[in-house]
Amino acid sequence: MEFTVKQIATLLGGDVAGNDTLAITKLAKIEEGRPGDISFLSNLKYEPHLYTTQASAVIVDRSFQPRKPVGPALIFVENSYSAFTRLLEEYYQRVSFARVGVEQPAFAGEGAQFGEEVYRGAFSYVGRNCQIGHNVKIYPHAYIGDNVRIGDNTIINTGARILDNCIIGQYCVIHPNVVIGSEGFGFAPQSDGTYKTIPQLGNVILEDFVNIGSNTTIDCATMGSTIIRQGAKLDNLIQIGHNVEIGRNTVIAAQTGISGSTKIGDNCTIAGQVGFAGHLTIANGTKVGAQSGVGKNVTEEGTAINSSPAFGLKESMRSLAVFRRLPELERRLSNLEKKTDN
Amino acid sequence: MEFTVKQIATLLGGDVAGNDTLAITKLAKIEEGRPGDISFLSNLKYEPHLYTTQASAVIVDRSFQPRKPVGPALIFVENSYSAFTRLLEEYYQRVSFARVGVEQPAFAGEGAQFGEEVYRGAFSYVGRNCQIGHNVKIYPHAYIGDNVRIGDNTIINTGARILDNCIIGQYCVIHPNVVIGSEGFGFAPQSDGTYKTIPQLGNVILEDFVNIGSNTTIDCATMGSTIIRQGAKLDNLIQIGHNVEIGRNTVIAAQTGISGSTKIGDNCTIAGQVGFAGHLTIANGTKVGAQSGVGKNVTEEGTAINSSPAFGLKESMRSLAVFRRLPELERRLSNLEKKTDN
Amino acid sequence: MEFTVKQIATLLGGDVAGNDTLAITKLAKIEEGRPGDISFLSNLKYEPHLYTTQASAVIVDRSFQPRKPVGPALIFVENSYSAFTRLLEEYYQRVSFARVGVEQPAFAGEGAQFGEEVYRGAFSYVGRNCQIGHNVKIYPHAYIGDNVRIGDNTIINTGARILDNCIIGQYCVIHPNVVIGSEGFGFAPQSDGTYKTIPQLGNVILEDFVNIGSNTTIDCATMGSTIIRQGAKLDNLIQIGHNVEIGRNTVIAAQTGISGSTKIGDNCTIAGQVGFAGHLTIANGTKVGAQSGVGKNVTEEGTAINSSPAFGLKESMRSLAVFRRLPELERRLSNLEKKTDN
Repeated sequence: MEFTVKQIATLLGGDVAGNDTLAITKLAKIEEGRPGDISFLSNLKYEPHLYTTQASAVIVDRSFQPRKPVGPALIFVENSYSAFTRLLEEYYQRVSFARVGVEQPAFAGEGAQFGEEVYRGAFSYVGRNCQIGHNVKIYPHAYIGDNVRIGDNTIINTGARILDNCIIGQYCVIHPNVVIGSEGFGFAPQSDGTYKTIPQLGNVILEDFVNIGSNTTIDCATMGSTIIRQGAKLDNLIQIGHNVEIGRNTVIAAQTGISGSTKIGDNCTIAGQVGFAGHLTIANGTKVGAQSGVGKNVTEEGTAINSSPAFGLKESMRSLAVFRRLPELERRLSNLEKKTDN
Repeated sequence: MEFTVKQIATLLGGDVAGNDTLAITKLAKIEEGRPGDISFLSNLKYEPHLYTTQASAVIVDRSFQPRKPVGPALIFVENSYSAFTRLLEEYYQRVSFARVGVEQPAFAGEGAQFGEEVYRGAFSYVGRNCQIGHNVKIYPHAYIGDNVRIGDNTIINTGARILDNCIIGQYCVIHPNVVIGSEGFGFAPQSDGTYKTIPQLGNVILEDFVNIGSNTTIDCATMGSTIIRQGAKLDNLIQIGHNVEIGRNTVIAAQTGISGSTKIGDNCTIAGQVGFAGHLTIANGTKVGAQSGVGKNVTEEGTAINSSPAFGLKESMRSLAVFRRLPELERRLSNLEKKTDN
Repeated sequence: MEFTVKQIATLLGGDVAGNDTLAITKLAKIEEGRPGDISFLSNLKYEPHLYTTQASAVIVDRSFQPRKPVGPALIFVENSYSAFTRLLEEYYQRVSFARVGVEQPAFAGEGAQFGEEVYRGAFSYVGRNCQIGHNVKIYPHAYIGDNVRIGDNTIINTGARILDNCIIGQYCVIHPNVVIGSEGFGFAPQSDGTYKTIPQLGNVILEDFVNIGSNTTIDCATMGSTIIRQGAKLDNLIQIGHNVEIGRNTVIAAQTGISGSTKIGDNCTIAGQVGFAGHLTIANGTKVGAQSGVGKNVTEEGTAINSSPAFGLKESMRSLAVFRRLPELERRLSNLEKKTDN
């Protein structure tokens, strides 16, 4: 990704003082700027760095007047901080969607259909009868099974696995080595102590704007669909069991596990390493503390719970505080017993 | 996978009323049936759906007499529920083993031998001197190192990694992105604070009918073998350390971790997010509650344990109940102290 | 890997009695030795096995005199135990670095540079402008993004993913299906309840002698670098958040998770399934017990902590001991209350 100072100034509606033909390849803090970097100066506490930075360009407020000669080109804008943020987002979008075309060898099964501006990395695999939308980026070593549908502007990163019949929405990001649609953990105990596999024939549906973190696994439904609703964000190494539903805009931190058939509401916030038992219903807006173990339904919206097994956050904090004083409590109790015996 | 209504009726020993040439591609609940689906009607509570469903065929009991005209073809059998279950299993088996042949490019090292009816997906890798049994399915991007043996009817799914010298039994299912036989975590502390790697030269043995869930990791033994015994079922994102043994028909839920050299008995049931310390011996039939931390041997068969650190299930439930009342307990104690002081 | 008995004797500075032309392919315990194996006899308790073993060669002390005829060739050395250990390490090194050259098809982007003795497995992917050092081993299905630098003698195992701009030191081992440099979990809540992705443009730096276990994920920094310092050893299925730093020679066991921006000191020992909150600073030499939840800074070097939430190890052991007696404590309290009421 390479721009000239002039191109960036035009994008931001700013004016350049200095060399506007310099090539910019990276964004950096002003104190860490190196040739090819662009930075910004908003808080004047950092002004001294402006005179020593090696960055090629610095975005500054229109009102700013340097007190000494400066090395980098200056781009004057209304608000340097928000201009830099915008540049960050623009740069990020372009990097994310930069790759286009097919690197060879790439595999596409019979009947697979691709939209425009698609990237298919080397060693990527797309199965039969898949429908892949516009601007979808399928990185090297990604695997997409048969009959999969993927919406526009979705990124399937390297090593991600989307198994047969799954449906992925628009603007989703599937991070490396994610597994979507593998068989749920269903085994029926037999009289001889062995287990028989319960056929798992459903799929997984991801609605739009869903993010799935690296090495997370989402099992297909036994029948029907495991569903991740619009805008949900899942971190790395999460386990989602068969027939689970995750509500809209629910955020789940790393290493949490959700057992089969549990329904999590909308706008929940679930911290890391939490475990949910199966067949639960969790109300909208529930907040769950890290390492909690949730074994019961949450029926009231906006409830905060914590601990393993989980109960009310405030109550759990009080119990945990007493937990640390337990040896002292026991001594006090023993003392009382001695007194009372006398 | 596509069958006609007639083929399915023949398979189930049933008789058809209606169009027996319709193509069936999927199984569905009667209320969700769509063209191309087959469903069943057992509980007559669901009979109204029969007259509105869009399914192409419905399996019904021989004794059943529709009260209105029906759209789908009807397949009459002795017991519609068990016929549908049988169909589910038959369909599942056929889907699981449908792929046959070699997709190019696929890599096979010198001396690798393959049985009949094998599938080798595009970009799959099989190392030198491997012996791959009949009807083994090696999906795209699966990696099989050197000198690996895989028994008949085993499925190695996309992105699974079977490292050098491992032995996989018959009728095993290795789900996507599983790692079997990677180096155990062995480092010897040196006097300068650094660590030296302890050579890990053993392998992993999976006996027959073993299932390993997505993204689970099973380390090779330092010397000898890490062993997963016949019929054991492991869920997703599980960690199995070097030289561990898992007994026959033991079931382990997601995100559990078992440290090096621990031996788990037969027919154990281990819930999710459990941790086991190293060098333990766990008796047959042990049941471990979710998120438990097991730090001691379990010597008596059929013991149920829970909590972290784990102890008897019933005892732990009682302690956990009191835990929630700890603030109240402390108040009662304080009150008593005041009384006694007077 | 195959050597003659003579080659091994030369390597160890030993003398052979017996057939020194036999081929040796594996190391084994003397009681499990089979043709082609080499073993050792140090503790004379095991001497009887020498006369029955099927191993092709046995390493013995110079002082040792067999009391019966022996089958295997004997290699006489000063100290048979340390000679065997040396052989183990030598063998392990040679196995680890045995593969050389390029298996086809392998992908290398424009401007990628490779040192000598490099292995690039079939279906491996190396992006544009990468610099790959001498003796680096890139296994099949490994993915290396653009602008990545990898130091000499580093192993990138099958299915490992090193994303754009990451820097990997010398003598590192990256195990299968590891993800390094994926996007951190950063989302800014919007007023309508949705979340906006915070651009993640930093990278990950691994210094020298770092080991990363299978299926572990290390997120890139938002800006700047997530850093794993020299000699750190990470086990399987670990989550490292964005902008985290792990100190030199720190060891972390499986399934532990470290939230964004937390700094772990040097020479720490962190057990399995531990969770760290974000933005913490953990002093050098800290020891953390399994399944602990660390929510506060640790400021004193060499502190041992435990439990969730974590506090001093000794204190936590005392509280956990009382926890098991809580029902009894409650009964004692109730008894006292009755007494006092009278």
